[in-house]
Amino acid sequence: MPQAAPASEQEFLTLIDRHFPNAHQHMPVARGDDCVQLVCPPDMVLSGDLFLQDIHFRTSYFSPADIGWKALAVNISDIAAMGCKPLGFSLGLMVPPAAQGLSGDFWNELFQGMAALAALHDLPLTGGDLSQAPMLGLNITIWGEPGPQGRVLQRRRCWPDDVLLTVGRFGLVRTGLMALEQKGPQAIEQYPQAVAAHLRPHPRVTEGLELAARRAVRGCMDLSDGLAQDLPRFLGPALGAQLDIPKDTLHPETLAWTKKQGLNPVQFAYLGGEDYALLACVAPAEADVILGAIPDATRIGTVTGTPGITLNGNPVPSAGFDHFANT
Amino acid sequence: MPQAAPASEQEFLTLIDRHFPNAHQHMPVARGDDCVQLVCPPDMVLSGDLFLQDIHFRTSYFSPADIGWKALAVNISDIAAMGCKPLGFSLGLMVPPAAQGLSGDFWNELFQGMAALAALHDLPLTGGDLSQAPMLGLNITIWGEPGPQGRVLQRRRCWPDDVLLTVGRFGLVRTGLMALEQKGPQAIEQYPQAVAAHLRPHPRVTEGLELAARRAVRGCMDLSDGLAQDLPRFLGPALGAQLDIPKDTLHPETLAWTKKQGLNPVQFAYLGGEDYALLACVAPAEADVILGAIPDATRIGTVTGTPGITLNGNPVPSAGFDHFANT
Repeated sequence: MPQAAPASEQEFLTLIDRHFPNAHQHMPVARGDDCVQLVCPPDMVLSGDLFLQDIHFRTSYFSPADIGWKALAVNISDIAAMGCKPLGFSLGLMVPPAAQGLSGDFWNELFQGMAALAALHDLPLTGGDLSQAPMLGLNITIWGEPGPQGRVLQRRRCWPDDVLLTVGRFGLVRTGLMALEQKGPQAIEQYPQAVAAHLRPHPRVTEGLELAARRAVRGCMDLSDGLAQDLPRFLGPALGAQLDIPKDTLHPETLAWTKKQGLNPVQFAYLGGEDYALLACVAPAEADVILGAIPDATRIGTVTGTPGITLNGNPVPSAGFDHFANT
Repeated sequence: MPQAAPASEQEFLTLIDRHFPNAHQHMPVARGDDCVQLVCPPDMVLSGDLFLQDIHFRTSYFSPADIGWKALAVNISDIAAMGCKPLGFSLGLMVPPAAQGLSGDFWNELFQGMAALAALHDLPLTGGDLSQAPMLGLNITIWGEPGPQGRVLQRRRCWPDDVLLTVGRFGLVRTGLMALEQKGPQAIEQYPQAVAAHLRPHPRVTEGLELAARRAVRGCMDLSDGLAQDLPRFLGPALGAQLDIPKDTLHPETLAWTKKQGLNPVQFAYLGGEDYALLACVAPAEADVILGAIPDATRIGTVTGTPGITLNGNPVPSAGFDHFANT
């Protein structure tokens, strides 16, 4: 028999207590007061991302567990982006009317998916807020501390001639998104890795900490809106980049998808979106050592002392994915 | 000529930069990276509240500036509730489709209202997230530090015979809400203070810090869901309370409204909702000193050693406002 959906605030809190331990070394006081209490390192980083139905996910091809997982993953990635270690998170949950028919099993699986990723990173859910809303939505706030070397990696720290590298694939999530939007859940048969990358991204916390531990790494960010949009933010207005991205460094599923659609695979991957790969700049003398030491790190180009970006020799416009492009 | 609405993420960020200073002693690095960086005291408190169109506010009688003000006020109140001092906040902003016609002036005024309250409490806006959404919504995350005495006031710290006191009126916001729902914006003519209390609540930070500075104050919370709902949470399951709330301690506008509607004013005020008054428990020997020292502090009853609440001699059911009662 399907489980009944939580019918009151208290039933939601009980369900959350079942999935998320209410005691943790980073949470000196249990959930349930007006605020969370934190024992703080001297420096912290903090971030928050919205994850909304039909904007960031669709219930037609995200399982409830995928929704819970990804809502947290995109937030953990913001901490990884700065070379830091996540410590805890809180959840603002927007619950649609019962008429939309989300069952008890749905909520159970959503929290299971989120709790699984939280456990992987040893993160307590410290509290939050619950509200009715016209649609399902999650606003997670996450915080963390600098890694062992105490560094916090920022954007706009590149020097001319720095090597640009990414950790993780770019273009793969866009492949998964496009395939899911066109084919629905069965996209997984032809594009299993692209679909998995879209539904269940793995934030690069370990790699972010490894980058931060090396002085030659000057700055880092995560690619949430695609290289085309994020690279200019990373460089700042005074610098440019010369990118060299051979087609065969892209994921085979990205190559297969773009071939089928008659698209230029490198441009497609450059536009990207939601890659959650890390983008870093490294002093040139140390680049090879770092590329060799960090799994999945790939050289994609070099920083130039003047503005403008070239991709495999051709100048590119600085256009990417804008969240408001179609409002 | 009316101002055009921001049409891109960048235009929103530019508008936000115009209203909120991008440098502050509690914000070591300017807005614009993946995370906010914080310089932390050893202990911190953190909270977040959703503020959603047609759930928490209506655009028919909230001005844009009221929306910006109240979204932040309810969050500051969570910090005040623990006797702490707010240090900064971040904003997750849900932007409805352009078709809903929110103008540039609307956004300008919304940020003005929020910035005015932020300036009163010297709070930097440190960053956040922007997303399209089906409706207007704000998710604020706020953090703070304990006051000069280093205490953090919690719930469930009452002893039997403690004096219960409130700082600020309860029942007044419910008066304003009911009047606005029935009469629209012209409710302000007959119920000016009730309407103001609903649209522009003033969080009780100073009073919360004063409570925390006195050892005789054992615990505190803010009344966001009304005394009926919040008092049992404050007491915990083992204790009860004997409330003595003379009718003439209620606000004259609450008395006028309930008389007109044929309602019992004390029960009406007890149900309350969104009062953002503080509720504290105090060792009996020190109660008079504290009541005399803190403006707007009122004795409402005493804690009993057994469960159950009486209101002016009559037992009351523990029912209040549940955010999900009508889902």
